[in-house]
Amino acid sequence: MRPVDILDRSKEKRVLIRLKNGAEITGILKAFDLHLNLWLEEAEERKEEKTVRLGSVFVRGDTVVFVSPE
Amino acid sequence: MRPVDILDRSKEKRVLIRLKNGAEITGILKAFDLHLNLWLEEAEERKEEKTVRLGSVFVRGDTVVFVSPE
Amino acid sequence: MRPVDILDRSKEKRVLIRLKNGAEITGILKAFDLHLNLWLEEAEERKEEKTVRLGSVFVRGDTVVFVSPE
Amino acid sequence: MRPVDILDRSKEKRVLIRLKNGAEITGILKAFDLHLNLWLEEAEERKEEKTVRLGSVFVRGDTVVFVSPE
Amino acid sequence: MRPVDILDRSKEKRVLIRLKNGAEITGILKAFDLHLNLWLEEAEERKEEKTVRLGSVFVRGDTVVFVSPE
Amino acid sequence: MRPVDILDRSKEKRVLIRLKNGAEITGILKAFDLHLNLWLEEAEERKEEKTVRLGSVFVRGDTVVFVSPE
Amino acid sequence: MRPVDILDRSKEKRVLIRLKNGAEITGILKAFDLHLNLWLEEAEERKEEKTVRLGSVFVRGDTVVFVSPE
Repeated sequence: MRPVDILDRSKEKRVLIRLKNGAEITGILKAFDLHLNLWLEEAEERKEEKTVRLGSVFVRGDTVVFVSPE
Repeated sequence: MRPVDILDRSKEKRVLIRLKNGAEITGILKAFDLHLNLWLEEAEERKEEKTVRLGSVFVRGDTVVFVSPE
Repeated sequence: MRPVDILDRSKEKRVLIRLKNGAEITGILKAFDLHLNLWLEEAEERKEEKTVRLGSVFVRGDTVVFVSPE
Repeated sequence: MRPVDILDRSKEKRVLIRLKNGAEITGILKAFDLHLNLWLEEAEERKEEKTVRLGSVFVRGDTVVFVSPE
Repeated sequence: MRPVDILDRSKEKRVLIRLKNGAEITGILKAFDLHLNLWLEEAEERKEEKTVRLGSVFVRGDTVVFVSPE
Repeated sequence: MRPVDILDRSKEKRVLIRLKNGAEITGILKAFDLHLNLWLEEAEERKEEKTVRLGSVFVRGDTVVFVSPE
Repeated sequence: MRPVDILDRSKEKRVLIRLKNGAEITGILKAFDLHLNLWLEEAEERKEEKTVRLGSVFVRGDTVVFVSPE
């Protein structure tokens, strides 16, 4: 069992991502790679009180704190 | 399917880029490389209330939080 | 004896993780890898006064300050 | 087409560089390397309200956010 | 003589560790590796006015500023 | 022509170095290496209103923003 | 001549070390390695108004801004 197994199981499911800059992104996980770069669909960014609809988004792996399936 | 596929599909389209320093850049994505360095045309930087017209711009990959096609 | 031995012994036990952003995550350690990426179950994040239930979570190794079995 | 092509085309032209510390440097781009280290001539640094004339300057690549030809 | 020799001599002794986030950890040094990851027993974290008893702890090497035997 | 050529030409001359922590160091450049580590003589550090005479100093390359011959 | 030569010459002498977190450490330089990890004896840490006697200390190289023989 490896930590990335939890990402494999989360494919096509909605995940919550906490970023190093304090923002949160939620979306449907479509793909990830070894750097933990992520591709999400139907994504939204929440930071403080603000929500931004992103739709498709590529998130750079080195900005990620954690990924949690909802 | 890999996360960078979403960048491939976004070529010649307008993308929104969030940077680690909190700024946003939008522009037409012309090219990217493995470090996620990006080349944009017709680019603008927005930070807090200020907008700066950049035209052509090379964005260093390690400053990127996410890239989202508009 | 190597430092990671303490992680090996902590598998299937509850651990406290301090993150670089000041938050704390607790959960049952299921797996870790060489980058110190962690997979936790029954996880909770605490930051300042706020607690967020995460359930399953993948924590990126480079955001970790320390891991301590409870 | 690669992102660095835009730097190649900008040689001997004035470029605007935004740095991670929030400062801006403008100058004539003379050379760059794979780390994105830059050599500028007739350079100026602007930070908040202050302008400093630098003349020749070597800028370390890992401090760069973006480079834009003027 | 190499700098890590001082860590070798500190095994099974109480050490003071200053972390990049400003916190201090003290504990009995059990093991360290080439990344400067540390395993401590009977450890305590002190940050500002707060003390947290950790017992066993794995400290990630890249968060360490210095290690000093007491 | 490479960016480090400007450092080669600056040997035995006074250079201004801006650091990531906002400080400035000036001194006579004696040597540099591929990591951009620098050896200066007759060096001074200026930060906010304070000036510290350093004499000889080894500056770690990864703290450098730019180097400019005076 | 290489920048590390200045460290070689500083062995067994008192050096001043500025750290990225703003603290200063002084001590007798006993050893250093390629990562710029340092071993000091009779060391003291000064940060703002506070001085802490450390005695022997291992300083992690990536926290160093500069090293200057006194």
